Amino acid sequence: MIKVSIIGSGNVAQHLISALSNATGVELVQAFSRKKENLTHLMDAAQIVCDLKDLQPADLYIIAVTDDAISQVSAELPFSGKLVAHTSGSLSINILDDQNRKAVFYPLQTFSKSKPVNFREIPICLESENDEDFERLENVAHAISDKVFSINSEQRRAMHVSAVFVNNFVNHLYKIGNDICTEHQIPFEILKPLIRETAQKVMTLSPLEAQTGPAKRGDKKTIAAHLELLTNANQKNIYQLLTQSIQHE
Amino acid sequence: MIKVSIIGSGNVAQHLISALSNATGVELVQAFSRKKENLTHLMDAAQIVCDLKDLQPADLYIIAVTDDAISQVSAELPFSGKLVAHTSGSLSINILDDQNRKAVFYPLQTFSKSKPVNFREIPICLESENDEDFERLENVAHAISDKVFSINSEQRRAMHVSAVFVNNFVNHLYKIGNDICTEHQIPFEILKPLIRETAQKVMTLSPLEAQTGPAKRGDKKTIAAHLELLTNANQKNIYQLLTQSIQHE
Repeated sequence: MIKVSIIGSGNVAQHLISALSNATGVELVQAFSRKKENLTHLMDAAQIVCDLKDLQPADLYIIAVTDDAISQVSAELPFSGKLVAHTSGSLSINILDDQNRKAVFYPLQTFSKSKPVNFREIPICLESENDEDFERLENVAHAISDKVFSINSEQRRAMHVSAVFVNNFVNHLYKIGNDICTEHQIPFEILKPLIRETAQKVMTLSPLEAQTGPAKRGDKKTIAAHLELLTNANQKNIYQLLTQSIQHE
Repeated sequence: MIKVSIIGSGNVAQHLISALSNATGVELVQAFSRKKENLTHLMDAAQIVCDLKDLQPADLYIIAVTDDAISQVSAELPFSGKLVAHTSGSLSINILDDQNRKAVFYPLQTFSKSKPVNFREIPICLESENDEDFERLENVAHAISDKVFSINSEQRRAMHVSAVFVNNFVNHLYKIGNDICTEHQIPFEILKPLIRETAQKVMTLSPLEAQTGPAKRGDKKTIAAHLELLTNANQKNIYQLLTQSIQHE
């Protein structure tokens, strides 16, 4: 039984607490939250601590707080020589304080409080300073997910940038699509099968193979007609830049 | 039994032929293809004609050819007064020749020959010159899809632009994500659950509600770090423009 405690009470912390509570081979010892009520819907109030000094011994402490707070929280931990992981996609393992053994336990997913996720499908990217600690991380990760990867800090940074493209930016293009629909009294509903199919296609084809559309075809007439229809300068800029980028790929 | 013939042998034509062959209440009379062998895997060779003059009477002729060819093909039809629809997302109903009754039968989907699609999930956008013809189109559309919409030429043009954003451009962002992964020896596999989840999220949340990430949070430090990591000028430009666009939404 590997003992794990979670430090934090945001989205990622809450999803980790849910997943670890139901995992076999892992014991969720405690969670730290400045406000107890943030977590009482997920675990026993007696297991929630509001002071880092009340943390009991565990085999792994996972710091799931905002990027800006990780460094300070790790320095405030009232123990040393323990295995401490952060969950950030963009920060190096070395942001953690030297007093403990450093690690990263990064679930690559977009979490929102309102939507349940199937953790078994979420890739978890691990990094540690030595092989023994890596094995510990692996055991915890496998207890909640089927997709566990070894990813170093430099790779993780690049992966996080990729994730911004395929998640944040993609979602923003959905938003522009929605805006254009609203402007022309078209139900956004019509686009949903296309959105699903576009994502589904790259599960089996490479994105390069899956590319279609006027930019790919070099269909200048359609491109010109589309640019004429777009009245919003920002939408126009995005249309032009992405069209050029597709044409040069 | 509504009699339908398909003119064309490309992606859209082939998917329509498959769907209509299996539909109830619809009889697929013939298909026109310059080369018979393009369609022999889908239908009886006797039903495939290579000369428009061999087209038999039908209640609806669907022209599923490239945008550039629609006008000419519709002018070459050796009959008049019949119901003739094109399948283009970007062209007006008026591109069709005046000799027949004009209509549009536009399935909004990305078709690739290599991937089967579930036509019942595909929205079909209809337009006609009068109510009686609209009812005919509706009957054919409902025979193959559960999602049938009345969309006029102006709306369809706007919808097609939306579709470019949520399909072509989204796929291109997947491609950039893939490129960044390759450059850093990260399996693209890791990003796939995120891609699926990002699409899934907007099935129930609006894209504005679903937006997350450094641009949304105004996290300048992460944005600067990402821009530093990107070495490709084109990727950098896209990152900057989409980040600005999210921040101004």
